[in-house]
Amino acid sequence: MAREREALRPFFVVADPAVLRTAATRLGVDVPVAPVTPEEAAGAFGTALPVVALAESVAVTPGSPDARSAPGTIAAIEMAVALTRAGRAAAVVTSPIAKHVLHAAGFSHPGHTEFLAELARGADGKAPRPVMMIWSETLAVVPVTIHIPLREVPDALTADLIVETGRIVARDLRERFGMLAPRLAVAGLNPHAGESGSLGSEDREVVEPAILRLQSEGIDARGAYPADTMFHERARQGYDVALAMYHDQALIPIKTLAFDDGVNVTLGLPFVRTSPDHGTAFDIAGRGIARPDSLIAALKLAARLAPAGGRVV
Amino acid sequence: MAREREALRPFFVVADPAVLRTAATRLGVDVPVAPVTPEEAAGAFGTALPVVALAESVAVTPGSPDARSAPGTIAAIEMAVALTRAGRAAAVVTSPIAKHVLHAAGFSHPGHTEFLAELARGADGKAPRPVMMIWSETLAVVPVTIHIPLREVPDALTADLIVETGRIVARDLRERFGMLAPRLAVAGLNPHAGESGSLGSEDREVVEPAILRLQSEGIDARGAYPADTMFHERARQGYDVALAMYHDQALIPIKTLAFDDGVNVTLGLPFVRTSPDHGTAFDIAGRGIARPDSLIAALKLAARLAPAGGRVV
Repeated sequence: MAREREALRPFFVVADPAVLRTAATRLGVDVPVAPVTPEEAAGAFGTALPVVALAESVAVTPGSPDARSAPGTIAAIEMAVALTRAGRAAAVVTSPIAKHVLHAAGFSHPGHTEFLAELARGADGKAPRPVMMIWSETLAVVPVTIHIPLREVPDALTADLIVETGRIVARDLRERFGMLAPRLAVAGLNPHAGESGSLGSEDREVVEPAILRLQSEGIDARGAYPADTMFHERARQGYDVALAMYHDQALIPIKTLAFDDGVNVTLGLPFVRTSPDHGTAFDIAGRGIARPDSLIAALKLAARLAPAGGRVV
Repeated sequence: MAREREALRPFFVVADPAVLRTAATRLGVDVPVAPVTPEEAAGAFGTALPVVALAESVAVTPGSPDARSAPGTIAAIEMAVALTRAGRAAAVVTSPIAKHVLHAAGFSHPGHTEFLAELARGADGKAPRPVMMIWSETLAVVPVTIHIPLREVPDALTADLIVETGRIVARDLRERFGMLAPRLAVAGLNPHAGESGSLGSEDREVVEPAILRLQSEGIDARGAYPADTMFHERARQGYDVALAMYHDQALIPIKTLAFDDGVNVTLGLPFVRTSPDHGTAFDIAGRGIARPDSLIAALKLAARLAPAGGRVV
């Protein structure tokens, strides 16, 4: 079993046990499913897949997006967060969700991460600002702007946004990843980082002032570096995480170098949350051919970042 | 010698032989310099570095940009092109030039490639449109827009520009690289190639119509693909060259994967031209520590693409 081969720390799944049993039977996989409480999960892990059951049963057909599965999906996420915040689990590892299915069922959050931030509201009622990092053994990247058209990037990119993002990244790399003085390499927005202003003004007017502000707070931020020469092997030795100014500037290098084992880590939340770096793949769902590498990497990273104890999917 | 170890085909250098002799002596490198005519170059190659001498002598101090070297630089490029167009050499391999030094000396072209296109004017007086491809054994990329601020990319990107670029790429991959049906993978402009229009309209309105036009001309162009998932190892098996919409979208993956041995190839010219994919590096010039990998790769690729015979640096 991958769990033993990969020496995974105990985790449990929040789900309807019947759904997992049916899937295992259909694929001919010999994985006993053990309904447990979170506290019983570690004991059951050696001989079965521990499952903390949802209150209701969930009807799903693999590969067929169905709005009737939405309440179960939402309940599983809520329960995982609640158990983690209550100290009954150490980290949340989420599986991909189909946003359009949830939206059709009335889910109003733009995405998974925003929903988690909502569930993480503090006593003051404020939702934390989540920051997406894609992490692998080879490279870690944080896109400062994410899912917006390329045309909107230059105006969306402000020094405040870069500084806030850099602060959250530096803090979580210290507190969660145990780095004493994390080194942040900041990419320029324009080709050649603007080439002294001849290829765009934003690198001098927005990116570099933000780097100076981060430095003045004692954060080891450097740049702005030309993005094309930041990601080769020798260059990567010089930093712990790259801050990219837009989606593809961050995602191209990490998916080029670590396509199968990139992990999506949400920084800035009051709990550890990781996720495989891929989508739902309805086209291959239920066929037993999906590569588990990214989920395994997400489980391992959660175990490394979490204080102790069980896991939640 | 690298020339033997790498089994390079004969080439000659267009330069002032005294400059090369001085450099060899200062670095303690035992490379005899043999002034030759282009026709004598192959015979001399086994025992010396063949040099076709410029008309005037050139004074340069390595690492010290000096406008007095500009006429010699320009004359060397002009002679290399003239010899190649006259059939006395088979290809042009250029070394990096310092644009600001040439501009200070009155050179009016935006860059090396544009100057070569100017020298390549046909009998009809029209300069060809040069297309920059960065090529390596691992990946080949063509940026459709190049040295402009990121903010200007969405408006600079037109279907005509993509189609013209794709045509030149497809033709030169057939005629020069000997590919019967080159496969062009076209990247989308926006994250996730616009995600059906929800992340920007250009992929549906500009990129995809351009791909359809290329297909209607019998060119195997595909896309628009999300740029982040185009460049990992399995994805690269599906095409021969990637057309990227802007500088960093093309240069990030190639410099991440092939930093030391990328070759800049100019397509669209009436002769073969390659160049190492790096700059002048005045900071290390004359110290004997520069990595020759990219220049060697440029010489090898020129030899592969050239009809036959000698080479010109």
